Amino acid sequence: MAKEPRPIDELTIWDDAKAMLKKARAEGIETVHERLDQQTPHCKMCELGTSCRNCTMGPCRVSEKKPLGVCGADADVIVARNFGRFVAGGAAGHSDHGRDLIEVLEAIVEGETTDYKITEEGKLRTIAGEIGIETEGRTVKEVAHDVMDEFFADFGSRRKEVSFLARVPQKRKDVWAKLGMTPRGVDREIAEMMHRTHMGCDNDAPNTLIHAARTALADGWGGSMIGTELSDVIFGTPTPRMSTANLGVIKEDQVNILVHGHNPVVSEMILAAARDPQLVARAKELGASGINVAGLCCTGNELLMRQGIPMAGNHLMTELAIITGAVEAIVVDYQCIMPSLVQISGCYHTKFIDTANKARFTGGIHYDFQPATAMTQAKEIVSLAVEGFAQRDKGRVDIPCEPIDIMTGFSNEAVIAALGGSLDPLVQAIVAGDIRGAVGIVGCNNPKIKQDSLNVGLAKELIKRDILVIATGCVTTAAGKAGLLVPEAIEMAGPGLKKICGSLGIPPVLHYGSCVDNSRIMQLCAALANTLNVDISDLPVGASSPEWYSEKAAAIGLYAVASGIQTHLGHPPHILGSKTVTNLAVAGLEDLVGAAFFIEPDPVRTAEIFDERIKAKRKALGLSE
Amino acid sequence: MAKEPRPIDELTIWDDAKAMLKKARAEGIETVHERLDQQTPHCKMCELGTSCRNCTMGPCRVSEKKPLGVCGADADVIVARNFGRFVAGGAAGHSDHGRDLIEVLEAIVEGETTDYKITEEGKLRTIAGEIGIETEGRTVKEVAHDVMDEFFADFGSRRKEVSFLARVPQKRKDVWAKLGMTPRGVDREIAEMMHRTHMGCDNDAPNTLIHAARTALADGWGGSMIGTELSDVIFGTPTPRMSTANLGVIKEDQVNILVHGHNPVVSEMILAAARDPQLVARAKELGASGINVAGLCCTGNELLMRQGIPMAGNHLMTELAIITGAVEAIVVDYQCIMPSLVQISGCYHTKFIDTANKARFTGGIHYDFQPATAMTQAKEIVSLAVEGFAQRDKGRVDIPCEPIDIMTGFSNEAVIAALGGSLDPLVQAIVAGDIRGAVGIVGCNNPKIKQDSLNVGLAKELIKRDILVIATGCVTTAAGKAGLLVPEAIEMAGPGLKKICGSLGIPPVLHYGSCVDNSRIMQLCAALANTLNVDISDLPVGASSPEWYSEKAAAIGLYAVASGIQTHLGHPPHILGSKTVTNLAVAGLEDLVGAAFFIEPDPVRTAEIFDERIKAKRKALGLSE
Repeated sequence: MAKEPRPIDELTIWDDAKAMLKKARAEGIETVHERLDQQTPHCKMCELGTSCRNCTMGPCRVSEKKPLGVCGADADVIVARNFGRFVAGGAAGHSDHGRDLIEVLEAIVEGETTDYKITEEGKLRTIAGEIGIETEGRTVKEVAHDVMDEFFADFGSRRKEVSFLARVPQKRKDVWAKLGMTPRGVDREIAEMMHRTHMGCDNDAPNTLIHAARTALADGWGGSMIGTELSDVIFGTPTPRMSTANLGVIKEDQVNILVHGHNPVVSEMILAAARDPQLVARAKELGASGINVAGLCCTGNELLMRQGIPMAGNHLMTELAIITGAVEAIVVDYQCIMPSLVQISGCYHTKFIDTANKARFTGGIHYDFQPATAMTQAKEIVSLAVEGFAQRDKGRVDIPCEPIDIMTGFSNEAVIAALGGSLDPLVQAIVAGDIRGAVGIVGCNNPKIKQDSLNVGLAKELIKRDILVIATGCVTTAAGKAGLLVPEAIEMAGPGLKKICGSLGIPPVLHYGSCVDNSRIMQLCAALANTLNVDISDLPVGASSPEWYSEKAAAIGLYAVASGIQTHLGHPPHILGSKTVTNLAVAGLEDLVGAAFFIEPDPVRTAEIFDERIKAKRKALGLSE
Repeated sequence: MAKEPRPIDELTIWDDAKAMLKKARAEGIETVHERLDQQTPHCKMCELGTSCRNCTMGPCRVSEKKPLGVCGADADVIVARNFGRFVAGGAAGHSDHGRDLIEVLEAIVEGETTDYKITEEGKLRTIAGEIGIETEGRTVKEVAHDVMDEFFADFGSRRKEVSFLARVPQKRKDVWAKLGMTPRGVDREIAEMMHRTHMGCDNDAPNTLIHAARTALADGWGGSMIGTELSDVIFGTPTPRMSTANLGVIKEDQVNILVHGHNPVVSEMILAAARDPQLVARAKELGASGINVAGLCCTGNELLMRQGIPMAGNHLMTELAIITGAVEAIVVDYQCIMPSLVQISGCYHTKFIDTANKARFTGGIHYDFQPATAMTQAKEIVSLAVEGFAQRDKGRVDIPCEPIDIMTGFSNEAVIAALGGSLDPLVQAIVAGDIRGAVGIVGCNNPKIKQDSLNVGLAKELIKRDILVIATGCVTTAAGKAGLLVPEAIEMAGPGLKKICGSLGIPPVLHYGSCVDNSRIMQLCAALANTLNVDISDLPVGASSPEWYSEKAAAIGLYAVASGIQTHLGHPPHILGSKTVTNLAVAGLEDLVGAAFFIEPDPVRTAEIFDERIKAKRKALGLSE
């Protein structure tokens, strides 16, 4: 017997989502919510992390009644192994993305592409200087070549530490060195994590978790940071600008192309191609007023930050965006692209176009996107979308709302520029207590949680308390739709934050980019700690991923904690089957790295916990609470 | 209610094992067999590969009734992702082991250790020549430095192909290039496998499997081959020699040290330290007649091949060896070390000593073994064992049998030397039909299968048919205990094999080393193919892992198939939940790479299938069947 579907009002806080969920039900289209219903209840063992299938003596399930797997592994070992691989999956996603940027830089340096170029020579030289490359009197290409070499080496076996540890306060590096947690090569840590979790290797849960943290740090200070920084070098460092968000950014009278995934390498070219006069002319010939490129998920964030494209939505909006019936093409690169999008596209005239050999979709139209041929391929893809406009069934189009304004583009460079050239005014505002602290709210949606209820709820609670919020990833559109990403949102903030943000003309919630761009937050924390001559763990800051779902979020959370930042999760990872692992995550790590996770489903209570922590950290720094 | 334990006679074909299983039951010690009973029945979903926990929207279980996970992934995608990660785990194990050898070479080259040295300068120069390094007029250190550089680079991001592809026939390389299967950097393929299997990346099962094969090839022709070759360079290339096997190699009147794991870096030092006159004198002081180092699993194979140490047993003997009550210490490095060994050691006076930071065991005595301090540490460890002799409870000692002779040491170099300096006599024997073909029987034990029944059964069936058998890994001790690893075993072989092996004075089953040393088999196949100017897939050869259990075995099987070698498994991996994946594994790969897997639990039927294949391959080469 089919289950009764959950009421739509329980699934999301947004009207645009509700309208599309109703349309989906009316049109007989299944979404992530119905699939979750079908998959509930989940396997308790997999949920607790106590099932193991890392060899064929099993699969095993351990419990109080059957405490050991066939090999003799207990719940602690099994949970730690599973969580280690979970984190490795996330670190691999971010870092392989970072590597792709190095390869684009290589294509530029080697003259294999003219479609991409070095846009930010100044930033390239700054980065080079930070990681010890000579820049004086050298051409941009010479510097770029050396930066490329160093970053490739950061993925290798010979590094004692990844390059960007140059940014990390010495006190923090000492903590890592003492624990054997210093991230060496990015790929090495990932491969070693896989090795350790093979049967008969690492059978000491805390030791496995230490390496999971090392792997996560290789992501945060390695792969992700390289991804962010080279994206800025190639596509431009973000600067504050206005844009719009929600499904209303899809335009009834235009050819609509949604870009989805994470890496700007493809989507930047799609955007550029969509501005091609011939393609625009062809769109007009077919009756459209133009070509509209809108973003989903983190590829959307990348283009929003640098080019100001509108955001159609976050993770749980990706299916619903297609259900508007007005999308000619969804162009994807990789990560977080629900395979269901292929089927939902097939319910409309929408073309599903995948572009990465490492992320193909059965039933998708595949382009093997390459730097050397990027613009040609992008034009072909845009042309496919344009031609699709003629097939749109106007009777099935429903764009449920008008877009909402948002402000974006807060790179660290932009923040420092807004502050007049240094972090000092920010430090002064923190010291004075106008800004009591800061929390990064990052990550995903998860259909188990009413969409964006926690993302938005927590942000509102924090700014009330004069705690600055930095948003990335799927939290961006949530905050934007809630009206938190505009300067006027200071009305929802406490008096101190209102004063500071008001004087700068910025929102109390700053959009800092994609999930990979959480590295910008790490860089900011490191810079603040260095300015104050303290460790990152001494700062009145926190991190939260209220509605996370992805292995990448687990990696992000773990590198935040390992970097000394208390981190909130709205629900636990698959670790509750081991007391050792759970206790280490929520308490023991505090002694080791000066921060731990906390799990809390209620946004008000979460804000209170952050508030208490920030008070304590401020007090320890000799500041008012 | 506790289950009735399975009768001991059903668990193993060996008397030494049966005796120790009886002793274990009498002493109330649980072994892998009882734990298997407790874990049976296994979770059907995990067994079929149709459960997914790669994100927290799940965990999910797909089936005909619930065909899609929360993200929309179907059984094909989920099974392919799980299998991809399974293979990545195996490839990571082998390859990280290979990297450890490069680091020892680095320590030698940099002068950081004198405990290790370059033993085989000739082999080092040969390898250097093969991978394009200048050797003429250069010192061994200069050459070693460049070899080290090249091998480190084989783990990196910038390789278009790993160095040892220089050994692969061009036809095979063309197959890989066409499929996008050419292995680039070892770690890169592993990290990319993890990336692809993150939610919303690779959602096309065949595409995921192609990358799994690429990852496996990076193991077989990369990490593993580097591991084998550098072990030879540092510890000596194996040459034929006699040794002994079974639990009878444990000596009642000696201090017994078992070495277990995979990497010879630790165990070679333990062996050398055990020959230290002071430690031997101390052992004698305590009433022992000497210090006996015996091998388990692949570390055992490594030392058996090069130093001729006796073999106490394979995977399912590791617990039982301790149950003799006569083991002072078990010294482990990593992989396949059942965590139960710590508890079983605790039931006796046995010291469980772990030596790798990446493989710690809760409750074990830990040494952070390092090249610079290796001999000092090894002596400390041996000393611990010697002092433990006094604590042995003689009343609990039971060594159930006398050892059996075995011949070992068949490296390719040794085989070529035995053949008079070239492979030509082997080729002639194959052409003449005296040796109709060859099958490598490799891999593990699995408590689901009566121990060594298939390993031995298949070997016997094959040699009868004039098919040469090459044994590695845990098949070694099985073949040895069955009397197949001595020249006299030709009496069990067919007439052709009897003639050839008889004339050379070698057994019809050749011990080729550890699991990592399956790379020797690949090298041999490549050399044969190059000699005949054909592809590897044209050769009358096969591979089998009848009793496999480990992720590494899956990686080995997949690189064998991808290299063009039909491969038998005694039971399937966790893939049967996807028809697409299963069909590709057992049929579709034949069209792509000229070989596929077959699953068959019966050794006679397996031999028949190999026989048919060999007939067909011989016929295609224009040879008699």
